[in-house]
Amino acid sequence: MVYVVEMEVNIPESWSQEKLADYLAREKECSQKWQSSGKWKYLWRVAGKYANISVLEVDGPDELHQIISSLPLFPYMNIKVTSVCKHLNAIRETII
Amino acid sequence: MVYVVEMEVNIPESWSQEKLADYLAREKECSQKWQSSGKWKYLWRVAGKYANISVLEVDGPDELHQIISSLPLFPYMNIKVTSVCKHLNAIRETII
Amino acid sequence: MVYVVEMEVNIPESWSQEKLADYLAREKECSQKWQSSGKWKYLWRVAGKYANISVLEVDGPDELHQIISSLPLFPYMNIKVTSVCKHLNAIRETII
Amino acid sequence: MVYVVEMEVNIPESWSQEKLADYLAREKECSQKWQSSGKWKYLWRVAGKYANISVLEVDGPDELHQIISSLPLFPYMNIKVTSVCKHLNAIRETII
Amino acid sequence: MVYVVEMEVNIPESWSQEKLADYLAREKECSQKWQSSGKWKYLWRVAGKYANISVLEVDGPDELHQIISSLPLFPYMNIKVTSVCKHLNAIRETII
Amino acid sequence: MVYVVEMEVNIPESWSQEKLADYLAREKECSQKWQSSGKWKYLWRVAGKYANISVLEVDGPDELHQIISSLPLFPYMNIKVTSVCKHLNAIRETII
Amino acid sequence: MVYVVEMEVNIPESWSQEKLADYLAREKECSQKWQSSGKWKYLWRVAGKYANISVLEVDGPDELHQIISSLPLFPYMNIKVTSVCKHLNAIRETII
Amino acid sequence: MVYVVEMEVNIPESWSQEKLADYLAREKECSQKWQSSGKWKYLWRVAGKYANISVLEVDGPDELHQIISSLPLFPYMNIKVTSVCKHLNAIRETII
Amino acid sequence: MVYVVEMEVNIPESWSQEKLADYLAREKECSQKWQSSGKWKYLWRVAGKYANISVLEVDGPDELHQIISSLPLFPYMNIKVTSVCKHLNAIRETII
Amino acid sequence: MVYVVEMEVNIPESWSQEKLADYLAREKECSQKWQSSGKWKYLWRVAGKYANISVLEVDGPDELHQIISSLPLFPYMNIKVTSVCKHLNAIRETII
Repeated sequence: MVYVVEMEVNIPESWSQEKLADYLAREKECSQKWQSSGKWKYLWRVAGKYANISVLEVDGPDELHQIISSLPLFPYMNIKVTSVCKHLNAIRETII
Repeated sequence: MVYVVEMEVNIPESWSQEKLADYLAREKECSQKWQSSGKWKYLWRVAGKYANISVLEVDGPDELHQIISSLPLFPYMNIKVTSVCKHLNAIRETII
Repeated sequence: MVYVVEMEVNIPESWSQEKLADYLAREKECSQKWQSSGKWKYLWRVAGKYANISVLEVDGPDELHQIISSLPLFPYMNIKVTSVCKHLNAIRETII
Repeated sequence: MVYVVEMEVNIPESWSQEKLADYLAREKECSQKWQSSGKWKYLWRVAGKYANISVLEVDGPDELHQIISSLPLFPYMNIKVTSVCKHLNAIRETII
Repeated sequence: MVYVVEMEVNIPESWSQEKLADYLAREKECSQKWQSSGKWKYLWRVAGKYANISVLEVDGPDELHQIISSLPLFPYMNIKVTSVCKHLNAIRETII
Repeated sequence: MVYVVEMEVNIPESWSQEKLADYLAREKECSQKWQSSGKWKYLWRVAGKYANISVLEVDGPDELHQIISSLPLFPYMNIKVTSVCKHLNAIRETII
Repeated sequence: MVYVVEMEVNIPESWSQEKLADYLAREKECSQKWQSSGKWKYLWRVAGKYANISVLEVDGPDELHQIISSLPLFPYMNIKVTSVCKHLNAIRETII
Repeated sequence: MVYVVEMEVNIPESWSQEKLADYLAREKECSQKWQSSGKWKYLWRVAGKYANISVLEVDGPDELHQIISSLPLFPYMNIKVTSVCKHLNAIRETII
Repeated sequence: MVYVVEMEVNIPESWSQEKLADYLAREKECSQKWQSSGKWKYLWRVAGKYANISVLEVDGPDELHQIISSLPLFPYMNIKVTSVCKHLNAIRETII
Repeated sequence: MVYVVEMEVNIPESWSQEKLADYLAREKECSQKWQSSGKWKYLWRVAGKYANISVLEVDGPDELHQIISSLPLFPYMNIKVTSVCKHLNAIRETII
């Protein structure tokens, strides 16, 4: 099943450059691990904002939560989750 | 370039069943024409709502507007448009 | 998988008493059919509002959409859908 | 009587790992105590967010407030409370 | 138990003066019946708006819904319901 | 004249237990002084939230501001003020 | 006492030109009567919108409601009411 | 002085094709008259929406209101007006 | 030209009493200087909130920005600016 | 292609005057570099607010993101991005 997820990042002002760099490196590694697994289908930057729109294909809501909450920046994001399904007008046989 | 577009449909109460069926048939034809052209990449139903999330890859904002405004139900939709771009953490070489 | 769904109903002013009664009867029949099937677990009235909060256990988002969109009043409702999953602090073995 | 409660958690950035772990342990213990008492019927994670949707059956608003405000993370949550009642279309004899 | 309820009225434009007068007369009669019963404690006009703030003391959410939904203008109101309880700083022995 | 006031409290994370206890004691004393004066008619806890709904009968907006701004927690509250008046359907001779 | 009131007008689409002209003429007459009385101190057009910001000095909320609700367009306006009072930094001896 | 104005259009469902065509023709004529006058500097379509963002340079708020309210579709638009001025970091000598 | 400006103040929790007193003294001095100049016509306290509604008559948006941004508390305020103009129904010859 | 971008700045309270001055100087230099390049067409101050409205003409969303995210104050801004295109009623041959 497919979820469209918007994540907006708010880095705490108190972080040092080192702490920020460490978080960003681990965030990249974590998100790329899930992309490589085939679960995280798309990761797009929202132009002009510190935000992304992502498309994930997972087994269910438990797996979605496992993936999103594994991100190091998870506690610092506003997140909007939309559960999507097959549209009758879609010409693709598969949803993604 | 890629846009993520959310469309929520509000059918006027005054429409007859025939008028509605006619609109829905033309809406389907129009959206499938753009899907077949390769411009409208994904069309997903938002589960539980009369709404969709769509992903379009177009030449620019003029073409996006041409496509969206060609939909027969365009005047009856609330629409949210997000312009997205390459994310540095994305592992795909192409954006879509 | 479980969804929590809030539905707020807006009856068109133009409806006759007969049309309204017909819709309400079919709405009741439809929602009770899904409750009897075991898919629609809870249907609660929001106290003081023409709205409900419902809990559904379905196979996936496609089935959720099939159920919600089969309701005769579906075109006349504002709907909020939340996909939920197992909470680590929950003591129940099953989610519902 | 039944309340549906949404809680969204915001952990202060200044907390140490120890303080956070202590709070989470006490939060778990507290919420499980109320679940065991039979007052807190359901505790569901909102998929992809640091939030939950809970269903409580209590004697009245005073007891609801006693339970929610006893949670160690109560001062760090945005909370939405909805009072629900019997829906005429519900087929269950009891509300929960 | 006590609820604070805000109601904002939207009269349909299509109503004749006679229909409006009839609704207003029945609305008055209905709200005064509940006031006389002692359930509807306060009915205040929001200054400058077609809205009221009401305070009701009822047996529970079912009775609250029975009262509010019995109002002839119920389908034409936006309603906000807040369940309140004893405040530790209150000096009154009773809540109302 | 009567005002309905909603106050939602946000305690700064940086406060010590002593500072918080001191503020809460002074808040209680202050709100009880105004309740005893007969100006602050009702103080209700919003069930499940760190918030209250209050009803005050004052000489005018200057006195309302004097009372609310005298609360020690005034700088830490989101406040919504509604000026109310006599409702034509009210059966009470006095507004409160 | 002084209120700042924002009114945004929504003319029903079904009105004929004659009905609209009649309403506008009566609206003008009514608002000018209250201005002449000295109660309605300022009436400003919000630039670029079918809306106004008004300042009224009245005896209390009952009189404010009497004035605003006497406007023929009252049922067709979204209205925001703010009760204001003396500011300690104001250099004027009178509030208006 | 310069204003940035966002206008979102809502065409009434009851309009015939002829009425709509007449309005659109007069809307075009009117907006082009103001563009030719040099007052309406830019008129941009919001991609994917029945909305525009416009930039006007006018003598003051009265002239802005005269222009915007002269549009035939003025009663059918949601309008957001922002008054802008010289930014200290701007390298242009003139504001537009 | 006239602007109606709402300012809501948020004092940082980290400020000492001395720093706060210093800011408040300079804020008072600054706002009174602009009031004395005749530019800042009205300064009203919003009853029950740490907020004001102000009316300014200035040469244009640049002067408005100069005044508002000169306030010591400018960085700590949420500000809403409305540009107003002559209303056709107003009986005053001057706008203020 | 053209974007209209609104940026609202929130300077952290913890910054020293030196840090703020350094950021502002680098912000100015950065925004002026992009203005000089011809990509950043307009930079307007929103009158009365610590905010700007900007108009950029870029090759696509990637370049827009490169420019906006290069601003030193990027992490401290709320940003709204609108993608615009040619309006059929516009009399200019070029979009900007």
